[in-house]
Amino acid sequence: MPETIDPGEVRFFCGSSHPQLAADITRYLGIPLDQTKITRFSNDNLYIQLGASVRSRKVYILQSLSPPVNDHLMELFMMLDIARGASAAEVHAIIPYFSFARSDKKDAPRVSITARLVADLLRTAGATHAMTMVLHSPQVHGFFSIPIDPLTSRLVFKNYFQQFDLSGTIVVAPDVGHAKSAARFATNLGLPITAGDKERISDTEVRINIVGQQVRGYERALIHDDEIATGHSILKLSEILLAQGVREIWVACTHGVFVGGGLERLAAVPEITQIVTTDTVYTPPEKRHPKLHTLSVAPVFGEAIRSNYLRRSIGDLFVFGEDGS
Amino acid sequence: MPETIDPGEVRFFCGSSHPQLAADITRYLGIPLDQTKITRFSNDNLYIQLGASVRSRKVYILQSLSPPVNDHLMELFMMLDIARGASAAEVHAIIPYFSFARSDKKDAPRVSITARLVADLLRTAGATHAMTMVLHSPQVHGFFSIPIDPLTSRLVFKNYFQQFDLSGTIVVAPDVGHAKSAARFATNLGLPITAGDKERISDTEVRINIVGQQVRGYERALIHDDEIATGHSILKLSEILLAQGVREIWVACTHGVFVGGGLERLAAVPEITQIVTTDTVYTPPEKRHPKLHTLSVAPVFGEAIRSNYLRRSIGDLFVFGEDGS
Amino acid sequence: MPETIDPGEVRFFCGSSHPQLAADITRYLGIPLDQTKITRFSNDNLYIQLGASVRSRKVYILQSLSPPVNDHLMELFMMLDIARGASAAEVHAIIPYFSFARSDKKDAPRVSITARLVADLLRTAGATHAMTMVLHSPQVHGFFSIPIDPLTSRLVFKNYFQQFDLSGTIVVAPDVGHAKSAARFATNLGLPITAGDKERISDTEVRINIVGQQVRGYERALIHDDEIATGHSILKLSEILLAQGVREIWVACTHGVFVGGGLERLAAVPEITQIVTTDTVYTPPEKRHPKLHTLSVAPVFGEAIRSNYLRRSIGDLFVFGEDGS
Amino acid sequence: MPETIDPGEVRFFCGSSHPQLAADITRYLGIPLDQTKITRFSNDNLYIQLGASVRSRKVYILQSLSPPVNDHLMELFMMLDIARGASAAEVHAIIPYFSFARSDKKDAPRVSITARLVADLLRTAGATHAMTMVLHSPQVHGFFSIPIDPLTSRLVFKNYFQQFDLSGTIVVAPDVGHAKSAARFATNLGLPITAGDKERISDTEVRINIVGQQVRGYERALIHDDEIATGHSILKLSEILLAQGVREIWVACTHGVFVGGGLERLAAVPEITQIVTTDTVYTPPEKRHPKLHTLSVAPVFGEAIRSNYLRRSIGDLFVFGEDGS
Amino acid sequence: MPETIDPGEVRFFCGSSHPQLAADITRYLGIPLDQTKITRFSNDNLYIQLGASVRSRKVYILQSLSPPVNDHLMELFMMLDIARGASAAEVHAIIPYFSFARSDKKDAPRVSITARLVADLLRTAGATHAMTMVLHSPQVHGFFSIPIDPLTSRLVFKNYFQQFDLSGTIVVAPDVGHAKSAARFATNLGLPITAGDKERISDTEVRINIVGQQVRGYERALIHDDEIATGHSILKLSEILLAQGVREIWVACTHGVFVGGGLERLAAVPEITQIVTTDTVYTPPEKRHPKLHTLSVAPVFGEAIRSNYLRRSIGDLFVFGEDGS
Amino acid sequence: MPETIDPGEVRFFCGSSHPQLAADITRYLGIPLDQTKITRFSNDNLYIQLGASVRSRKVYILQSLSPPVNDHLMELFMMLDIARGASAAEVHAIIPYFSFARSDKKDAPRVSITARLVADLLRTAGATHAMTMVLHSPQVHGFFSIPIDPLTSRLVFKNYFQQFDLSGTIVVAPDVGHAKSAARFATNLGLPITAGDKERISDTEVRINIVGQQVRGYERALIHDDEIATGHSILKLSEILLAQGVREIWVACTHGVFVGGGLERLAAVPEITQIVTTDTVYTPPEKRHPKLHTLSVAPVFGEAIRSNYLRRSIGDLFVFGEDGS
Repeated sequence: MPETIDPGEVRFFCGSSHPQLAADITRYLGIPLDQTKITRFSNDNLYIQLGASVRSRKVYILQSLSPPVNDHLMELFMMLDIARGASAAEVHAIIPYFSFARSDKKDAPRVSITARLVADLLRTAGATHAMTMVLHSPQVHGFFSIPIDPLTSRLVFKNYFQQFDLSGTIVVAPDVGHAKSAARFATNLGLPITAGDKERISDTEVRINIVGQQVRGYERALIHDDEIATGHSILKLSEILLAQGVREIWVACTHGVFVGGGLERLAAVPEITQIVTTDTVYTPPEKRHPKLHTLSVAPVFGEAIRSNYLRRSIGDLFVFGEDGS
Repeated sequence: MPETIDPGEVRFFCGSSHPQLAADITRYLGIPLDQTKITRFSNDNLYIQLGASVRSRKVYILQSLSPPVNDHLMELFMMLDIARGASAAEVHAIIPYFSFARSDKKDAPRVSITARLVADLLRTAGATHAMTMVLHSPQVHGFFSIPIDPLTSRLVFKNYFQQFDLSGTIVVAPDVGHAKSAARFATNLGLPITAGDKERISDTEVRINIVGQQVRGYERALIHDDEIATGHSILKLSEILLAQGVREIWVACTHGVFVGGGLERLAAVPEITQIVTTDTVYTPPEKRHPKLHTLSVAPVFGEAIRSNYLRRSIGDLFVFGEDGS
Repeated sequence: MPETIDPGEVRFFCGSSHPQLAADITRYLGIPLDQTKITRFSNDNLYIQLGASVRSRKVYILQSLSPPVNDHLMELFMMLDIARGASAAEVHAIIPYFSFARSDKKDAPRVSITARLVADLLRTAGATHAMTMVLHSPQVHGFFSIPIDPLTSRLVFKNYFQQFDLSGTIVVAPDVGHAKSAARFATNLGLPITAGDKERISDTEVRINIVGQQVRGYERALIHDDEIATGHSILKLSEILLAQGVREIWVACTHGVFVGGGLERLAAVPEITQIVTTDTVYTPPEKRHPKLHTLSVAPVFGEAIRSNYLRRSIGDLFVFGEDGS
Repeated sequence: MPETIDPGEVRFFCGSSHPQLAADITRYLGIPLDQTKITRFSNDNLYIQLGASVRSRKVYILQSLSPPVNDHLMELFMMLDIARGASAAEVHAIIPYFSFARSDKKDAPRVSITARLVADLLRTAGATHAMTMVLHSPQVHGFFSIPIDPLTSRLVFKNYFQQFDLSGTIVVAPDVGHAKSAARFATNLGLPITAGDKERISDTEVRINIVGQQVRGYERALIHDDEIATGHSILKLSEILLAQGVREIWVACTHGVFVGGGLERLAAVPEITQIVTTDTVYTPPEKRHPKLHTLSVAPVFGEAIRSNYLRRSIGDLFVFGEDGS
Repeated sequence: MPETIDPGEVRFFCGSSHPQLAADITRYLGIPLDQTKITRFSNDNLYIQLGASVRSRKVYILQSLSPPVNDHLMELFMMLDIARGASAAEVHAIIPYFSFARSDKKDAPRVSITARLVADLLRTAGATHAMTMVLHSPQVHGFFSIPIDPLTSRLVFKNYFQQFDLSGTIVVAPDVGHAKSAARFATNLGLPITAGDKERISDTEVRINIVGQQVRGYERALIHDDEIATGHSILKLSEILLAQGVREIWVACTHGVFVGGGLERLAAVPEITQIVTTDTVYTPPEKRHPKLHTLSVAPVFGEAIRSNYLRRSIGDLFVFGEDGS
Repeated sequence: MPETIDPGEVRFFCGSSHPQLAADITRYLGIPLDQTKITRFSNDNLYIQLGASVRSRKVYILQSLSPPVNDHLMELFMMLDIARGASAAEVHAIIPYFSFARSDKKDAPRVSITARLVADLLRTAGATHAMTMVLHSPQVHGFFSIPIDPLTSRLVFKNYFQQFDLSGTIVVAPDVGHAKSAARFATNLGLPITAGDKERISDTEVRINIVGQQVRGYERALIHDDEIATGHSILKLSEILLAQGVREIWVACTHGVFVGGGLERLAAVPEITQIVTTDTVYTPPEKRHPKLHTLSVAPVFGEAIRSNYLRRSIGDLFVFGEDGS
């Protein structure tokens, strides 16, 4: 039986990105979700007030950096700053989806490694510790000068897929860059693994090759990625898999950003029978397609926060040196 | 004759908030406006590339913090970070409209003094110096740990209004808090000054009193404020002035934010015959009303940058301890 | 019934500026006032030793920045440094009178915003949190990068003046800049409010106008300011009030610095029948004039420290966004 | 014709790791290599003296973090500290082989992301800018808070291999993790590319699969890696390639660390006919095997330093977002 | 009876320099010594893993900076970094022998004050507090920006020597620079004191004079120094003492580094009948000469750590303003 | 012939401690001494304005930390802050007498190492580099995290004393702690050296022994110290020297603080025929005793500033690892 958090010792606030997840986590922890008042001045500047005294307490502030990203980021900066300025003992930034992790290298002259920049800005704003889930690359961990716990979604997916008969199924990573992560996922489920590799033929043409084990002979492909936005790459990969004889496709990703009709694009493929994601990013009701299954990460964050509060190791919830997945 | 800037020594970039002003300033200075490529990833994250080598050069980055404020702010953070990371010798943030200056005090528990927060974030992002115009209160200067030059718009307005016959005109500050600033403006033009004072009668009723000198006997009122957004307060004040016998009203403000129909609201008053502002905030063509006269601050910023470059004092362009005006 | 502080958890020291207030606060809190040994080397350097172990404890250090200001400031720096170097868990600077708050803007080229400088030096010296009372302008709060609680003296004054029959009394702010603060004070007492405004006629002549409501018809004026030093402005204002028919004047200020005969100057006016201040600044016995009434702020600081220790909100004791009062 | 560096403006020092490379670079630049005196106290503490005044000059300090790594690192810290303390204007750490880049993620609980730690220590020690070559992963760039230029060795290798007839040759990445980098290398030479992938069969058995294009039909394999130490993985891969019909193997790596008989181990394979590396790590004469070809990176660092000095973009010498190659 | 430390609240790790002392201290404290795994990658980079969760705990990391100094220092940096990154509440660096303290001044142009550099690097690596013993000069205390407790070995020596009949014994400081420290040592034992003074006759010849009280008439000299490495100076001094009629010599030093045959060199002098040191530096069994008596400082560090944990003053264990001894 | 400083490139200001020395140094350098306006508000707060634009210039600010020390220190902080805030390129604190250097160790529990504290505060206030003369102990150099040049007064004294016939003269250090420094001074003049040593007999009695070479046989003693304030120790030493047969005494000290009648006390001894000091501390005309000879250090600071400006090594003017003198 899990030990409990003393509600008098902590405060839990959330920005406007994902009140639902904040409510789920606090319910899991048996603590109240404190009020946050967010309005705007007529000149578009945010005005935020935290609704409970934070003096000398452990303060958790949840914000997912989903679109509109910059608004959500500024909300987070301000909430961190308020907590620090009001004498909080600890200020924890809980960021289920740290979208900036994709900007993790300088792939052209005079661009920003934005993930590092944001890590620094979070510290300046007052964060003393951070939690997140499934960073795009494991090195992003090193961008933070405050302690950070990047949690894994693997157990959540494992629990879900274990309810199905997985015979004849092969895990497919859409990109060799994520092959290692997908391999761990496949090993967890006792499944074989292969990967796609994009090859640029010309300016307008891209060919995806399947590298590693052949998919021929498998009935079902389980495509596994860290984040899906427009779904274009997954669609392309699906076409190839189907051309190679696969009959059914499942798509799994931790961060279901789904913009520009990304969800509908995938759902329109008849052989894609389910799209499984987590709730690190909020999906509004109008976007919830019957093929979409959203798994809750509230227990993962809840356990991690409880372990942090109770000073227990959270190694079991942690992503060790893996890239996104 | 002004001395010139060696174009090889400097780089000038701008974010998406106000390319026009950047173009005007660089034209004034006789230097090129360097390219900035701003796009978005599908997950809404910005991707920015500066289009010219900044190595060991003085880099000027212009961004007005007008709506959408948070997008403009994040652009600025990233551009500063890029310049620093690419070994710029100096990184100057040129912020004609620093909208956060309004959040300069803690007027309720657990709110953010956002102007201080943003000042700190700008330094973390890489700014080594800043320039701005007409801060809401002069104390905001002290929020910056990097040197900052808050420039004045007074000369711009003086030059404009001197072309008119100003007899029978009285300057009106909409709020006693800005009375000192308006007084300096009035003194510049040789005009008398008075001020309005808001008094809250009940939750729904506000009364504005005219304090100081009476307006009766004056034909024309010149309302002078630092920033106008929705225009509601100015409208209210205008009604009172008209009730007291004023026949014509001119409105002057440095930062013409004009949101929520603010410009149209004022322009609809027949006695308001002209609304004078500057171009610290970009006004799109479709918003340009015939009654609106926009004065350019490009020469002010141009001169300040040149003085900075040539290591001359910019005292003449500077706002000394004044609140917004 | 207030909860108590465990004396084993805290240490309370004071510099040489105001041992009396420190004694009053610790008596209020029921904790000992720890010894501080302050001497000087023959070369005028201070030598300070704290008289009790601070290891892993919450340490409160009280110093009012009254004259001789620089000696008091250096004492404070050294005491903070000692506490930090001796492994204190928290180092609270309790500064009842933060005189530097007056230097809050750059009103001339190449001057210091000294309040910001001192805020930074306090952090460097080791302060992790600060408390003060009635800052000259509310923006000074934003100069501190450590959490700071600026307390209000309003309740202290309210309690005092409520014992009198206040009919026929009007509150007068000596300067429009402090009109808002004086208005809150007046509202608290259910009194009307007006303000003086200095107008510079020539180099040698200043005229003070009364702006806002007329004083004619009132028997008594209650002049309200944040700080009085030489008393010259208050004297000038008093003359005008008397000329307009006021019969009795009360003067109230939070920080009674009273230098250069300031107290005597005011007390010499027959119509000024009482001068009410607080003990944020120590008044030596020989300065205590019969007309002077000194209200103790020890309970305010005591309550704030207790709330801080017990992790309760101190919103009720806090000055929200007000200028000095 | 390249422009020159004014020798009076710069100082160039080197630690004990690689005086030869320092001499080559300074010869390339036409500037003197300044003396550094490195001795040890009897208690094993280093004592270092820089042999030329650095006051207000651009100082370049070269040190390769090759074995003994910690001694070389501490030398570098001390040299940086000396330069800063002696008032150098700029302090550039030139680190041809930044071996810590391999510790770029937390792949187990309670381990260090040492590359980030060392990046922070370098800044603390006084570095204001760094240059290095071919980081193990491109994200390591983001660990540095000072500007850093990671240079590429690609042109050096291209120039070398272009002198050969490369028909029938395929580039092989030993690990999918470096497939992208090897692909760029292959594209440069107009060659096809494939990759090996380690699969752990049991605790004691590892199988390497060839993923991507088949190697059958190719006469020669060009194995391309960022760093070779013991050579065990390359040896294993070679066996597989030979089993698949390859007749000749060339090995190319940027950082030839070659410890524990690594060089001899590879050279002993008859089909490995040449091992090509660069001089980022010093190879002592007794280790120079006839099959080893060492390419000089002195011109690359020389050009980068000159570009830095002359404030030119060094984009052409830069590794953009690539993992090691 | 001493109070105890709750083992659940602390973690104690040690680097490879001195596991024996760590075991002794933890045994003294009644807490477990946690495991640390230290290996090396083939490229000579250290790989370290702490073997117990440190989350929100007080973490003590012991490392003596004995030869190989740089390896031990880098181990310490990494262990501190791991503790911080894994969310330790406090990170205490326990450094029994801080060898860098000897580099405490700039005695030539362009050298490093390495003790200050290392103090800064320790903070950057994550140390929040340090403990050490007998710094070479008391000013080194001031090099640390984190709190540091330099403990004394005096009581350990006093307890040891008090068991002997000390009549006819004089304490000799090998250098006037340490005369004060030796004087305190002598006073403790009720003995007279004198000092040697090196005088450089020529480049190759050094003369040591005895300053202060004459040694003639004393049977036994007790040479007292902070650190002995090669023993050359002590040998020279011994010759002089013997020439002046001393019949027996005891040598005492806190840090017995003993390199280059230093121990054997002294032990070979027949009149040197015992060499007394402490275990701040580990002496391997093969070096333990019969004349060597090693006193344990484990109780001193144990008491200091307990006092720190229990928030008691450790003044009794502290070196106040003394130079090494 | 010395090269010159371009007056347009530098600004030179001084606080109120020593305008004479500032005037002498600027005259030596051929540059103007810029105006500084220093006044006080009625509440004792300083108000300072620098009288010339510092934008992008090298700014030198001279202040000697003589009594009243805290006032002079605060002036210096503010002047540094102004220079930084007004965009100076470099801010040099020129502190001829850094009196805090005496507080260089923790010789009791819970005292401040004030020299380190002040060094940190100077950096926070804006200093980027410092110059000083003859620090009390050489380790104080290591307290500064900004580059600092501690200059020597030895050449000044050497030039002065060389004009006399020094036969029969012995140099006497008043304390063994300064014996090394006095020895260097003696060597410079070709004189023998001895030292006094204070021994505390009881609480009320101190005995000074002469250690080292005997003074008997010498006609004249030249007492050499770094700083003299009340002169009590020197007086005591003089008595002993006279008792041992010395016939004439000269006293030399770098920092002639002379408080509490210190100068008169020494001058009253007939055998003390001259007291030689420098002008690091200002001596007002009324204190100038006929026996006092004040040597100017203006050329030393002038040369050091010129060397710094011209980027030349200032090794010749530097104190390498010496304690005071």
